[in-house]
Amino acid sequence: MQTIDYRTEPSRYRHWRLEFDGDVAYLIMDVDQAGGLYDGYELKLNSYDLGVDIELNDAVQRLRFEHPEVRAVVIKSGKDNVFCAGANIRMLGKSTHGAKVNFCKFTNETRLSIEDASANSKQTYICAINGNAAGGGYELALAADHIMLVDDRRSAVALPETPLLAVLPGTGGLTRVTDKRKVRRDRADVFCSIEEGIRGTKAVDWRLVDEVVPNSKWKDVVAARAHEIAARSDRPKDAKGIQVTPLERTIEGDRVAYSHVEVEIDRARGLATLTVRGPGEGVPASVEAAHALGVKFWPLTVARELEDAILHLRTNEAAIGVLLFRTEGDAKAVLAHDDFLGKANGDWLMREIRLYLKRVLKRVDVTAKSLIALIEPGSCFAGTLAELAFAADRSLMLVGTREGDNREPAAIVVGQANFGWYPMGNGLTRLETRFLGEPKTLDVAKGKIGEPIDADEAAEIGLVTAAYEDFDWDDELRVMLEERTSFSPDSLTGMEANLRFAGPETMETKIFGRLSAWQNWIFQRPNAIGEQGALKLYGSGVSPTFNKERV
Amino acid sequence: MQTIDYRTEPSRYRHWRLEFDGDVAYLIMDVDQAGGLYDGYELKLNSYDLGVDIELNDAVQRLRFEHPEVRAVVIKSGKDNVFCAGANIRMLGKSTHGAKVNFCKFTNETRLSIEDASANSKQTYICAINGNAAGGGYELALAADHIMLVDDRRSAVALPETPLLAVLPGTGGLTRVTDKRKVRRDRADVFCSIEEGIRGTKAVDWRLVDEVVPNSKWKDVVAARAHEIAARSDRPKDAKGIQVTPLERTIEGDRVAYSHVEVEIDRARGLATLTVRGPGEGVPASVEAAHALGVKFWPLTVARELEDAILHLRTNEAAIGVLLFRTEGDAKAVLAHDDFLGKANGDWLMREIRLYLKRVLKRVDVTAKSLIALIEPGSCFAGTLAELAFAADRSLMLVGTREGDNREPAAIVVGQANFGWYPMGNGLTRLETRFLGEPKTLDVAKGKIGEPIDADEAAEIGLVTAAYEDFDWDDELRVMLEERTSFSPDSLTGMEANLRFAGPETMETKIFGRLSAWQNWIFQRPNAIGEQGALKLYGSGVSPTFNKERV
Repeated sequence: MQTIDYRTEPSRYRHWRLEFDGDVAYLIMDVDQAGGLYDGYELKLNSYDLGVDIELNDAVQRLRFEHPEVRAVVIKSGKDNVFCAGANIRMLGKSTHGAKVNFCKFTNETRLSIEDASANSKQTYICAINGNAAGGGYELALAADHIMLVDDRRSAVALPETPLLAVLPGTGGLTRVTDKRKVRRDRADVFCSIEEGIRGTKAVDWRLVDEVVPNSKWKDVVAARAHEIAARSDRPKDAKGIQVTPLERTIEGDRVAYSHVEVEIDRARGLATLTVRGPGEGVPASVEAAHALGVKFWPLTVARELEDAILHLRTNEAAIGVLLFRTEGDAKAVLAHDDFLGKANGDWLMREIRLYLKRVLKRVDVTAKSLIALIEPGSCFAGTLAELAFAADRSLMLVGTREGDNREPAAIVVGQANFGWYPMGNGLTRLETRFLGEPKTLDVAKGKIGEPIDADEAAEIGLVTAAYEDFDWDDELRVMLEERTSFSPDSLTGMEANLRFAGPETMETKIFGRLSAWQNWIFQRPNAIGEQGALKLYGSGVSPTFNKERV
Repeated sequence: MQTIDYRTEPSRYRHWRLEFDGDVAYLIMDVDQAGGLYDGYELKLNSYDLGVDIELNDAVQRLRFEHPEVRAVVIKSGKDNVFCAGANIRMLGKSTHGAKVNFCKFTNETRLSIEDASANSKQTYICAINGNAAGGGYELALAADHIMLVDDRRSAVALPETPLLAVLPGTGGLTRVTDKRKVRRDRADVFCSIEEGIRGTKAVDWRLVDEVVPNSKWKDVVAARAHEIAARSDRPKDAKGIQVTPLERTIEGDRVAYSHVEVEIDRARGLATLTVRGPGEGVPASVEAAHALGVKFWPLTVARELEDAILHLRTNEAAIGVLLFRTEGDAKAVLAHDDFLGKANGDWLMREIRLYLKRVLKRVDVTAKSLIALIEPGSCFAGTLAELAFAADRSLMLVGTREGDNREPAAIVVGQANFGWYPMGNGLTRLETRFLGEPKTLDVAKGKIGEPIDADEAAEIGLVTAAYEDFDWDDELRVMLEERTSFSPDSLTGMEANLRFAGPETMETKIFGRLSAWQNWIFQRPNAIGEQGALKLYGSGVSPTFNKERV
């Protein structure tokens, strides 16, 4: 199996181009037909695979960090007469179940990142549909804040998955149609049953797009709309972006190492240990100094490395079912960085870093692996890094010290970052979700901001699952891990996804719930993937044969 | 395939007993080991199959209608040392995918009906766990308003599905643990990983039960608690229940007929037409007269017949993927009955009838078939019956009259019933959900209460999907049905479940979403049902072999 690398940069893009016009950027999709990640399919009609989406994700990130001056982003097609035909079907037909689901998950995260940019980075996305937008192509448009469709009597938006492929739109399409665009349900039903989609003013009437523009005025109206939307942004006009330099990573045997993150894989036991190291230095002297550090500013470094490690493990290490989170370093230094970020939040870059950390932590939440935090002497589960413990399915904390280890007993320190900076997909913080049944405990925790909480107290309050003495630690951990890795991976995926997101549901939790849900099921059914299934037979000229039983 | 009949009555129960003590009823589970619905398994340890649940559903319904004096219901076990071992595993292992999912769906509906009784019928359920409650056994307890556990150093509550069976608790267990009981997520994770479950005060500390009671005081404390809870009810003390007489139904060939509901199955085309007939008589002279009519009172008759027809089609006609809703009769008579119910809502029986209609309409919403309403001359889609059109995935309305048919053109009439009586699982009415994106249209519809709305206007407002003249009707309908029945049933199940429930999610929508979701997927995976899967090998002494890949 080829290792998928999420690291890229514009000079290496094969499928996207960036063009700039003052406060507006154009993100142009121009997929290289021959540039598929795997052999055996051609990326015709601007259809995409994971490789295309990796570039899109990179571009969306860079626009935030490298281009503070960009206040509106227009996604458009670089090809004539086609916007985007969606995920490549031959690629889907050849993919394993896991690859399909992981692909959809990552693409969903990119869509949500685009929405986060519009909502919180004030870099608003516009989709200028100049040609047919079908399936994932229209789903990409749905992620934009404003959808424009050219009225050329040809270009249409469509979600043809049900009629053509016997699966659902895989990137939250149905949910965005009903919950974001609020399309009337029977119209949505009709829309999702029409292969050729809907065009012109009807697409506006049905709330599928925001405006249609005659072909003759297309370019001008798109530009005007983009500048108009850009004018509403609070992004600074004269700031300088930072350079997002290549992320350094070494993979040696079963070890993946970055500057502050390290992953050790234990294949025999089916688990990996992910260690995050706290800051090696104090906070910068000023916000300007933090800008000068750029990607070397610790919170940003950690966000990038943690994100890459999580994506790597998801994509390239499917059989590793358990992820142990460890931290190493000085809790005070972590909290000082949080404090620095908090005080400087009026600064565009500090805001971006917090938003990025939020998104990375959300990637952790939707990762289909058992997450277990180990809180031991020498660790720094404080503030932002404490979120890793709160994101975990279970957390174990060592009481006191270890024989022969003269470090202080482990402590958790909560900080302001744990009370609002990093909402989960359900709109609540991890601590709010954790203490849904005991809101008073949330207040107790809030009262402890900045104070080291030792293992007994953390267990008493309920910040950790269990506290063990050194004497019991190894046995307890071993038994728990043996138990965990003996369970069915499918059942664990369902159970964890269920238990992680108590409380309110949002468009976002619906999207992921339904992905590791309906779609996970539908992707598995003979009606889709059997020898007579629609995904297998697509393009062959042979109609699929369905088992008609409804369940 | 044996036809499953949902009709039963206490004299035919094999698994449940009812005992009465003034305002408290005891619903005693005492499963007849040899009384399984199918051959090949024994219902040991109070484990259950669909047949046991059909009796439970019947008992819950009867307690409402036949026993206004019952204000609290205690569910307990009639066996020593075991409360309920949950769904029978051998039965699950032998069931088809569809049978498993339908079984879980019906059982969920019964659980929600129990919760509706506590919340809205003021007949509050208490679960008195006298023995082990595992899996579905604990899920049954979770449906109660108050859970009591005997403290005998043995009895425990458990959700051992993940460790033992490689599937999830199938009846909303995980969701009720996190969202109803608000158990802390890491504790829920531990709880769901322990085969033997949790007992004693720890079960209270972890919010899994509400109280533990020493064995010596068990009976007295349960009775005292029940009477105490009963005292808070507003149910009348001296009212007389109505008799829920056997539902008359004839099945002849492809026709299922009741007094006011009729189903015609067209097997060749994979569809069924369900016709509901409006009231044959005017409203009763008084509430007392309605009581005297009992199950012959039209709204109650229709609720019972529609419910049975829906359950019959789901269970016994899986390959019928499309359901056409038709109505026949006088819209004014339907609205007069709504008006009667609305005015008499202080009466316990009228309240029960409205709650029942609400639950039946919810059964329609979660039915995995394409629902299409046909609104033609002679129909009475008014008030309560108009909900069938609003529940449908699509609705077609005939413009004007048909040649040779001298009846008035079709009209929809909305009434007060459409604006709050029948919330869907998402907590919104069907019209609120429909007009989520255009709240003003909801006001327009409200302004039309009582006025017949013809096809053109209904299409204009958006109450129907499309309006066709007689000239086009047959072709449009034929094309639509051919298209619909050509689609993948799995994809349609996912698409419809997605489009039907826009807007807020609730514990209820989570439960069904995750059922036709994670569980639908997990039930299908080799890790559960393959030759080496956990469901297949359960009880054989052989450990399952899992594909370890996480998706």
